[in-house]
Amino acid sequence: MAETRWLDEREQRAWRSLMTMQDGLAEFTERQLRNRCGLSGADYQVLAHLSEAAGGRLRSFELGELLRWEKSRLSQHLGRMQGRGLVTRERCRTDQRGAVVVITGRGSELIEAAAPQHVADVRAALIDHLTAAELETLATIGDKVRDRLAALGRDGLSVAAVDGAVAGGGQLERDDGAPADHAG
Amino acid sequence: MAETRWLDEREQRAWRSLMTMQDGLAEFTERQLRNRCGLSGADYQVLAHLSEAAGGRLRSFELGELLRWEKSRLSQHLGRMQGRGLVTRERCRTDQRGAVVVITGRGSELIEAAAPQHVADVRAALIDHLTAAELETLATIGDKVRDRLAALGRDGLSVAAVDGAVAGGGQLERDDGAPADHAG
Repeated sequence: MAETRWLDEREQRAWRSLMTMQDGLAEFTERQLRNRCGLSGADYQVLAHLSEAAGGRLRSFELGELLRWEKSRLSQHLGRMQGRGLVTRERCRTDQRGAVVVITGRGSELIEAAAPQHVADVRAALIDHLTAAELETLATIGDKVRDRLAALGRDGLSVAAVDGAVAGGGQLERDDGAPADHAG
Repeated sequence: MAETRWLDEREQRAWRSLMTMQDGLAEFTERQLRNRCGLSGADYQVLAHLSEAAGGRLRSFELGELLRWEKSRLSQHLGRMQGRGLVTRERCRTDQRGAVVVITGRGSELIEAAAPQHVADVRAALIDHLTAAELETLATIGDKVRDRLAALGRDGLSVAAVDGAVAGGGQLERDDGAPADHAG
C-alpha cells in the first residue's frame, strides 16, 4: 500500500497561498467588473478575445480554444451574451463545422470602457507589487503547470491514484495527530 | 485624463500564466474529486476544515472566515451538504449569533478517502515540479496579494478608477494598433 506523502510545511504554505490568491483575485476583479460595467469575468474574456481578433470575429471553436472552455459551456454563455446584445452568431459560409461569433457595437463599447479599469485593477492587486524576478517565476510556474496538466490529461485519471490509502483527515500537510489550522 | 498603463510583455505573460494556471488547476482537481469521490472542490474545502477542527465542529462564522466565503454562499452550500448527509447544523447553546456546523460520519469517511488522492493530484499537477525557491516565491506573491486585496477592500472601489480613459481594445498589453493574440 502506497504511503501518502502529505505536504510539508513549505509545500502547504505555497499551495494554500496560491488557492487564496486565486479566490481573492477572482472575487476582486469580478466584483469590480460587475459593479462598474455590468460584465462578468467570463463576459470580459469573451469580449476581449473578440475585440482583438481581425474584424471582431472568431470561429466558435477558435474562441473555445483561446478560452479553454468546454463546447457546452461556451455555447450556453454565448447564448446569454447574444440575448444581451453583446455578440451575434453567424453560420460560417465556407465551413460547416461551426458558427462565427462576432462582437456587436454595444459589446465593443463595453470592452473599450472596461479594459482600462480592468488593467488598473490587475496592477493594483498584483502586477505593480511584484519584482521582475517574481513576474518571471510566476510565468515559469504557469508554464510547468500547463505542461503537467497536458500530460495528466493524456494519461487519463489514473495518475494520482493511491492504492487503498485511507489516512489522515482532510489536511494536506503531514498528519501528526494534532488538528491542523488550515485545509487543502 | 490619466493615460492607461497597459501591461508590457513580461507583465502580460505573468498575468496570463497565472490565469491559465488557475483555470487548469481548478478544472483538474474538481474533475478528479468529482469522478472519484462525488465531491465538488467546495465540498472538499468544507469537509477538510471541519475534519481538522476539534470534535469535527466549527461555528458557522468561523467556517466562513476560513473559507473566505460570503455568508449567503456558505449558508446555501451547507444546506445542500446537509441534504446529502455530509454535515449537520446545530443551534449554538451559549451564543445566539449562529449555528454550529458538524461533520457527519459519512462526511468523515468521504474526506478521509478523498484526501490522499487529492494531495497526490496537487503533487502531480504542481508541487512536485517546483523548486524550493519557486515554492517560496509563490507563497511570497500570495502574501503580497492578500495584503493588497485587504487594503483595496478597505479603500472601497475607487482605487482602480481611471478618469474617463476609454482606449484600446480588450487587450491588457500595450495598444500598438495591431490585433493581439491574447486577452486579459
